[in-house]
Amino acid sequence: MDIAALRQANPEHWKKATAIRTLAMDAVQAANSGHPGMPMGMADVATVLFEKHLKFDPKQPDWADRDRFILSAGHGSMLVYALLYLTGYEDMTLDQIRNFRQWGSITAGHPEYGHVKGVETTTGPLGQGISNAVGFAMAEEKLRAEFGQKVVDHYTYVIAGDGCLMEGISHEAIGLAGHQKLGRLIVLWDNNDITIDGRVSLSDSTDQRARFAAAGWKVLACDGHDPADIDRALTAAKGSDRPVLIDCKTIIGFGSPKKADTNSAHGSPLGDAEIAATKEIYGWPHGAFDIPADILDAWRAIGAKGATARTEWEGRFTKLSGTKQAEFTRRMAGEAPKKLESAIRALKKQISETTPKVATRKSSEMVLEVVNEIMPETMGGSADLTGSNNTKTAGLGVFSPEDRKGRYVYYGIREHGMAAAMNGLALHGGVKPYGGTFMCFTDYARGSMRLSALMGVPVTYVMTHDSIGLGEDGPTHQPVEHLAMLRATPNTYVFRPCDTVETAEAWEIALTAPRTPSVLALSRQNLPTLRTEHKVRNQTAQGAYVLAEATGKRQAILMATGSEVEIAMAARDLLQAEGIGTRVVSFPCWELFEDQPEAYRRKVLPAGPVRVAIEAGLRFGWDRWLCDERGRREKAGFVGMEGFGASAPAPELYQHFGITAEAVAEKVKALL
Amino acid sequence: MDIAALRQANPEHWKKATAIRTLAMDAVQAANSGHPGMPMGMADVATVLFEKHLKFDPKQPDWADRDRFILSAGHGSMLVYALLYLTGYEDMTLDQIRNFRQWGSITAGHPEYGHVKGVETTTGPLGQGISNAVGFAMAEEKLRAEFGQKVVDHYTYVIAGDGCLMEGISHEAIGLAGHQKLGRLIVLWDNNDITIDGRVSLSDSTDQRARFAAAGWKVLACDGHDPADIDRALTAAKGSDRPVLIDCKTIIGFGSPKKADTNSAHGSPLGDAEIAATKEIYGWPHGAFDIPADILDAWRAIGAKGATARTEWEGRFTKLSGTKQAEFTRRMAGEAPKKLESAIRALKKQISETTPKVATRKSSEMVLEVVNEIMPETMGGSADLTGSNNTKTAGLGVFSPEDRKGRYVYYGIREHGMAAAMNGLALHGGVKPYGGTFMCFTDYARGSMRLSALMGVPVTYVMTHDSIGLGEDGPTHQPVEHLAMLRATPNTYVFRPCDTVETAEAWEIALTAPRTPSVLALSRQNLPTLRTEHKVRNQTAQGAYVLAEATGKRQAILMATGSEVEIAMAARDLLQAEGIGTRVVSFPCWELFEDQPEAYRRKVLPAGPVRVAIEAGLRFGWDRWLCDERGRREKAGFVGMEGFGASAPAPELYQHFGITAEAVAEKVKALL
Repeated sequence: MDIAALRQANPEHWKKATAIRTLAMDAVQAANSGHPGMPMGMADVATVLFEKHLKFDPKQPDWADRDRFILSAGHGSMLVYALLYLTGYEDMTLDQIRNFRQWGSITAGHPEYGHVKGVETTTGPLGQGISNAVGFAMAEEKLRAEFGQKVVDHYTYVIAGDGCLMEGISHEAIGLAGHQKLGRLIVLWDNNDITIDGRVSLSDSTDQRARFAAAGWKVLACDGHDPADIDRALTAAKGSDRPVLIDCKTIIGFGSPKKADTNSAHGSPLGDAEIAATKEIYGWPHGAFDIPADILDAWRAIGAKGATARTEWEGRFTKLSGTKQAEFTRRMAGEAPKKLESAIRALKKQISETTPKVATRKSSEMVLEVVNEIMPETMGGSADLTGSNNTKTAGLGVFSPEDRKGRYVYYGIREHGMAAAMNGLALHGGVKPYGGTFMCFTDYARGSMRLSALMGVPVTYVMTHDSIGLGEDGPTHQPVEHLAMLRATPNTYVFRPCDTVETAEAWEIALTAPRTPSVLALSRQNLPTLRTEHKVRNQTAQGAYVLAEATGKRQAILMATGSEVEIAMAARDLLQAEGIGTRVVSFPCWELFEDQPEAYRRKVLPAGPVRVAIEAGLRFGWDRWLCDERGRREKAGFVGMEGFGASAPAPELYQHFGITAEAVAEKVKALL
Repeated sequence: MDIAALRQANPEHWKKATAIRTLAMDAVQAANSGHPGMPMGMADVATVLFEKHLKFDPKQPDWADRDRFILSAGHGSMLVYALLYLTGYEDMTLDQIRNFRQWGSITAGHPEYGHVKGVETTTGPLGQGISNAVGFAMAEEKLRAEFGQKVVDHYTYVIAGDGCLMEGISHEAIGLAGHQKLGRLIVLWDNNDITIDGRVSLSDSTDQRARFAAAGWKVLACDGHDPADIDRALTAAKGSDRPVLIDCKTIIGFGSPKKADTNSAHGSPLGDAEIAATKEIYGWPHGAFDIPADILDAWRAIGAKGATARTEWEGRFTKLSGTKQAEFTRRMAGEAPKKLESAIRALKKQISETTPKVATRKSSEMVLEVVNEIMPETMGGSADLTGSNNTKTAGLGVFSPEDRKGRYVYYGIREHGMAAAMNGLALHGGVKPYGGTFMCFTDYARGSMRLSALMGVPVTYVMTHDSIGLGEDGPTHQPVEHLAMLRATPNTYVFRPCDTVETAEAWEIALTAPRTPSVLALSRQNLPTLRTEHKVRNQTAQGAYVLAEATGKRQAILMATGSEVEIAMAARDLLQAEGIGTRVVSFPCWELFEDQPEAYRRKVLPAGPVRVAIEAGLRFGWDRWLCDERGRREKAGFVGMEGFGASAPAPELYQHFGITAEAVAEKVKALL
């Protein structure tokens, strides 16, 4: 690349782009860690995007109709931090950039949602951003269909690197986006031919353009260092009836005499000497973090432009009816409608009276029939297990290019892509996503589920077939460690309801939790209604509670979740028949019980009686509750699985693995 | 489809294929669960493959040079069970097929490796089989290069469905296979246009042929119900310089008058009436499970053919030198060379004397320098973090189309694909795979890691950057729950060594464990050598052991793993200085400690002293060890993480999150 020629051809552009490059180099150098090469390579593309195409207002970063910009290649975080500073986002000060990657700063190593205004989603784990973007674009289509193009009319732009495109999740995302013809999704591929290990040719020979075309995308290309060509491609990308890939040919570490176009520009500081040599080539005589006033002014003017568009939008918005305005505002704020509480309550009452015996996956459907009726913001879906997950209720309609008002998504066999898209749907706002698969396949969705938790995105995972109760499909499909894995994840509610009433309560919490994702672990097999006495209070919100009190002297406490609460109740009958006073504690959510005051926890699990936990999963983690609050451990036992399951009808598996009322009663008596 | 015409065109083929179809229908009906549609649809393809192409000998299912057949669409398990029965695998009796999906039978819902001879890998979780197959094909290339085409010369055939191809892992697998030009890999795509939710067009519009071509595959197609066309395609697939996709156009539930070509043929019994009607169309007057002798004989003759090829192979094998024969046999048996033990011992001794201060990821490299020299079967790799995982030692060479003897794989940014390929490498036999990524990205590889455990495949996962010690990259890259998640997984050794000596011991166990995968959780940051006194015994094999005894009365026991053992030792110094006798237990592997006799466990963790565990992860699971063996819980504490990490230099993070020697000493004193 002839940098001198580029400088001369468009000096105004050059200076703006170089401000990004130098901030990235300087911040990484100051932190003595980070990734300078990617921002240096993509600075030209980002400059043209922000200057000529992106609709945003730094003074109102949460403006509902802004274009979304997602840096899927999150290691290039300094690119977005530099852009936010330069365009005038108030919390992105130069001090924050000087403190890149330091304790207490908002400029984390990878962009983190909630830390920084203007960062739409947390990225860094590769492939997540581009997959979130599919959800963002779906939300936009959905809301545009509902509220009209005058108030919803924006694009989702993504910068993705080779890493994002090699990850399997990208396949699921581009397949879903192509199928859904998400024309407002534009992906800028930082095609720099370099990965951490060296040239892409070390590990990959994929023709990415052909690959995206095969998935139904429109494919464009540009010279990623030629502003006119970038602008041409971006202009051509808009108004497409399909998602668009722009192959931006770039040079990593652009301009660095020794490191450009090599993997040594990727993940380490360039070093003072190399920075000096690079700035020389850039024609940038300024010191570290020094952005001359004229260049900063030019950038700030770009940021200021957005106010006009935003004001015009406000004008259009106020022309909506008052009801529509209120609804739009409620939806974007993620507030559940007021009548949800009473509807759940009414359902609980009805269930307590009619006591249906159904699988909790069916219970979940019964709850969703009520919820989806009164919450137009829900968007359901399943990774090709609709009839098994019971996620599709009457009248949802199917979200498709032909029906953007449809509220049900056939995600296909794409668990990871579904989870990432749901994160995007929730982050965009205005919709409330839930989606299902078999609980065992949380394994496939893990990468995105962790990000739901880390970001605090209230997505609901409907995970059915939650134990050996799945039966004949066998150990590949039977979760045993998954409850432990999910409970080990911070900021995640793991609900394992025992009947329809608890399922309704769990859904209520999931739909109203502002900053916590929820997992509903639901049975394949039928379960009796155990909550036969209607309680207004959401008992599941306490995490654990006394479902059946001991008669006579309390000698044992049985703790159980989900399908094993029925077994605990039967064991209680056996024990009480022998005069052994036995309390049954239903334990649908560990995390919420942990959050209760110690006094409540002690009340539910007092010291003294023998404790036995029953769960058709592994014991791992249960010792937390088998030890009592006073620091003494009572005699305690566990009835559950000791390893992987097997293929056989569920009732036989319960017998063979010894998860029965009789086994529980024996265990209690042995401990007494 | 005109079935009458097909019957007439090739009645011998028709009968053989229909034997498969009817066994599948009958078994699913008898089990009242299962997937008849796929075997019915792919019976013709499978018949041609087994009759005319697959090299196998039912009498010697483990013959090293057999072609490998992998049913990636594992739900169609009755297809492979029927084939194994018909061709004469001894343990696959008709009784086993009658007991499909029942307790104690080998005919599990999904094909399980180790249960059934002839099942090369456990499938069911979609996309795994096709991704394992990449490892199988790599192993074949590697061994052919090493031992010569006369003894290693076989193909890997895969049947994959739309589900396999939609899963993200398939993208990683086909990208890797295309890049590696694995010409011995032939994938038969069961292109039936149906998924569980309905037609593929509900959720996907990908042009699969174009997609595979974009990844560098040769693409063929055939009518999946025309034996001549299938044979033509299979013949054309062989001898390719690239992996081959054969698009087999099929009809799910082929022949079923009401269910063919619909999703209702996928996952439920057809029902007696529909079976009768289907058999009528098939021209199959026989009862359930009834295979007429002439048809069975024809199938058995196909199975018997393999003996010739196998005998010829044995003749060629015995012409190898005795040393080569012994080496090949050792390699295929997965036995470590005898000198491994002494080499590890020598390294330990040297380390105890030289006491290097290095990160355990570097320790791992030091061990691998020794191991790779004496174990030519190792194949290392990394998901694009070679320099960070320290997985590439001198002289390994790079496995590539140009160098099939290369022993290092640049897997690219494909954690899931790498893990699945490693399963395939290990299952093929003759090579011993290990591969690295950041420990946080076990999330991406989880689906395959679980299968390593379920199958009992001794793969080694080199998971570096195992805590907040990773520092500035921040919480997206800092595992906190992952140790718990991995420990919760059955049949997985999770090693978190504290120094180079423990790392060497962990590697020794990983390389010699016959049926258990291992995870090495390794630090980014430097750690001192703590095992300064040489011990011949592998102390890590005991799971936990006393690293430093209390001086004076034992009042506290500190348990720690990995990078926190150093902190425990420093805390011990503080406490001993105050006269508080403190034992330090290094705890590199929970699973192995659990396997110790209770007497040993009590000796290491006697009742009485205060117990504090220190680990830069979550407490989840630790209560198992914080409670003592006698059923009483001593005062116990935990110093570690309470949630996600943050972006900052590692030493600051340890300070801010309170994981310090001072905090440990304070905790002990508060508990005393």
